Amino acid sequence: MKKLLLLYLVIIGAYVLYALNFFYGQNLSARSGEPAGLVGSIDEKYVMVTFQSGIDYWKSVIKGFEDAAEKLGVSVEYRGSTQYDAREQVTVLEQVIAQKPAGIALTVKNPEALTPSIDKAVDAGIPVVLFDAGAPDSKAYSLLATDNYNAGVTAARTMARLIGGKGKVGVITLPNQLNHQQRTNGFRDTIRAEFPDMSIVAIEDGKGDVIVSRDAALAILDAHPDLKGIFNTDAVGGVGVADAVRMRQRKHEVKVIAFDTDKVTLDLIRQGDIDATLAQGTWNMGYWSLVFLFHLHHGIVTPDRGQTADASPLPVYVDTGISVVTRENVDDYYVK
Amino acid sequence: MKKLLLLYLVIIGAYVLYALNFFYGQNLSARSGEPAGLVGSIDEKYVMVTFQSGIDYWKSVIKGFEDAAEKLGVSVEYRGSTQYDAREQVTVLEQVIAQKPAGIALTVKNPEALTPSIDKAVDAGIPVVLFDAGAPDSKAYSLLATDNYNAGVTAARTMARLIGGKGKVGVITLPNQLNHQQRTNGFRDTIRAEFPDMSIVAIEDGKGDVIVSRDAALAILDAHPDLKGIFNTDAVGGVGVADAVRMRQRKHEVKVIAFDTDKVTLDLIRQGDIDATLAQGTWNMGYWSLVFLFHLHHGIVTPDRGQTADASPLPVYVDTGISVVTRENVDDYYVK
Repeated sequence: MKKLLLLYLVIIGAYVLYALNFFYGQNLSARSGEPAGLVGSIDEKYVMVTFQSGIDYWKSVIKGFEDAAEKLGVSVEYRGSTQYDAREQVTVLEQVIAQKPAGIALTVKNPEALTPSIDKAVDAGIPVVLFDAGAPDSKAYSLLATDNYNAGVTAARTMARLIGGKGKVGVITLPNQLNHQQRTNGFRDTIRAEFPDMSIVAIEDGKGDVIVSRDAALAILDAHPDLKGIFNTDAVGGVGVADAVRMRQRKHEVKVIAFDTDKVTLDLIRQGDIDATLAQGTWNMGYWSLVFLFHLHHGIVTPDRGQTADASPLPVYVDTGISVVTRENVDDYYVK
Repeated sequence: MKKLLLLYLVIIGAYVLYALNFFYGQNLSARSGEPAGLVGSIDEKYVMVTFQSGIDYWKSVIKGFEDAAEKLGVSVEYRGSTQYDAREQVTVLEQVIAQKPAGIALTVKNPEALTPSIDKAVDAGIPVVLFDAGAPDSKAYSLLATDNYNAGVTAARTMARLIGGKGKVGVITLPNQLNHQQRTNGFRDTIRAEFPDMSIVAIEDGKGDVIVSRDAALAILDAHPDLKGIFNTDAVGGVGVADAVRMRQRKHEVKVIAFDTDKVTLDLIRQGDIDATLAQGTWNMGYWSLVFLFHLHHGIVTPDRGQTADASPLPVYVDTGISVVTRENVDDYYVK
């Protein structure tokens, strides 16, 4: 009986040693040298700051930011000024800086107003990257945004496909805003260079307003009975252009290309009132903003000189791309 | 005695349960949902393919590729054609595709020659990204490279700083190559726009050759006794320009800006014969190429529509940046 108990003891003891050894071994392999894998900790908080925080446009950016946080095992927070107001955004940014987060991804309403706060964050050792709209003279490490000229190139090729590469087209835009000038220039240069049978007969100011854009479209339609298409470069005016085409009963005859993927625009694509819209790579903006901030926070790349003495510790600019939304793929673009 | 043994048994049993539970718990937390952390496996092999595989320029790109592999716990291999020969590079690429690697980072000697093989790889489900030089019509997912126009902008501002924003300057370039045209255009546009007291008095062809570049520089120096600086846009000619300035005994009086960080260029910066050179973000090209390929291979982003329906599953273009190398920071740029 005593011997049997002793035997039990030995067997159990051996098992404990085996289990401990197994467990210890696992740990060792995970800790040899540096552990492989990009992984952070849940108390590491990254903050995204926007303006007009309620609009649809940011939803997919936030989704990308959150998806990256899940992959990397870190926390995120979303803040923003409620209005399209630079001063309010500065206040929000200053509050975020005071929390000393692991990093800040920021989109800039007004570069002049925001730059001092951006520089203050960077000087305090808080990594900052910008998305969607930048502040070129700030100390932020990178800008992740659409190349607006290329967006115009894509619009031109899409228009050519829709109208068979032939005919008169118009543009409705915001002529005083740089990003819209770039979209218009990419559109115009591409038509000149690649589509000799197409011409731009009018470039009008839609003021980013549905009614103004509708009236501008009506004027172009009336002046050019053989018009084949209109490209509207902002997120709002496309709805007005579609209205105008419907009012003049020239649906299908005149193709409409809009910009961005607001719900109302997507609905009009489903109905066939807008033929195509251009979607920006918003998920990519959010996802790679967080991955970049993670690299700075963990010192994988360093502000001083990078691992080599590269310009910037991170790529200075990332073109997040443009995709074309039509009736065929419109369902993929509704925010889930 | 019997009771004591029983007590031992209970204690040891409890310990075994505790140890097993601890071990199981560890495993559980690591496997709950998706495990946090971007981490691959060591049998996952990514291949980098270049041309002229022996040159200095790739060293820092390879270092970035290797650093990312270490972080992500995956394997890498480096292949390349030994010559500046597109056909040889196609052969190497085809051999790599046959191995079915987890991904391919490629720099393109000749887009027309390489595009069919790139598309073949992508169609076979092997992710491909391009670095340093692209193939715009291929199915590769992204290009990570220097924005050459911006490099010219940086060169112009550096020249202005060196000569006090005033005086005549010359350019030696390869007028038939797109990337060099872009560097020249960025330089020229910036001087026109920002430095009214500077002017470009000559733009000459250096043919990417030390002697031809030297002779071109001599001609400019002789024609313009009040010349203040020369910008050489390629990696080779800067040495010839420095020679010319020394031959005419106008060192310090005429500032020289070169391109890239070949050892001979860095040595001349140390000696003061070249005043500055422009370093490309080569480590970033390699590092982010691997991170991008990893995301495609692991389906974190998918070729079909990305997590949202972004244009491309990845940013279509990444500007890896430019930095200015002078005597103050030249030591950081020697390949270690």
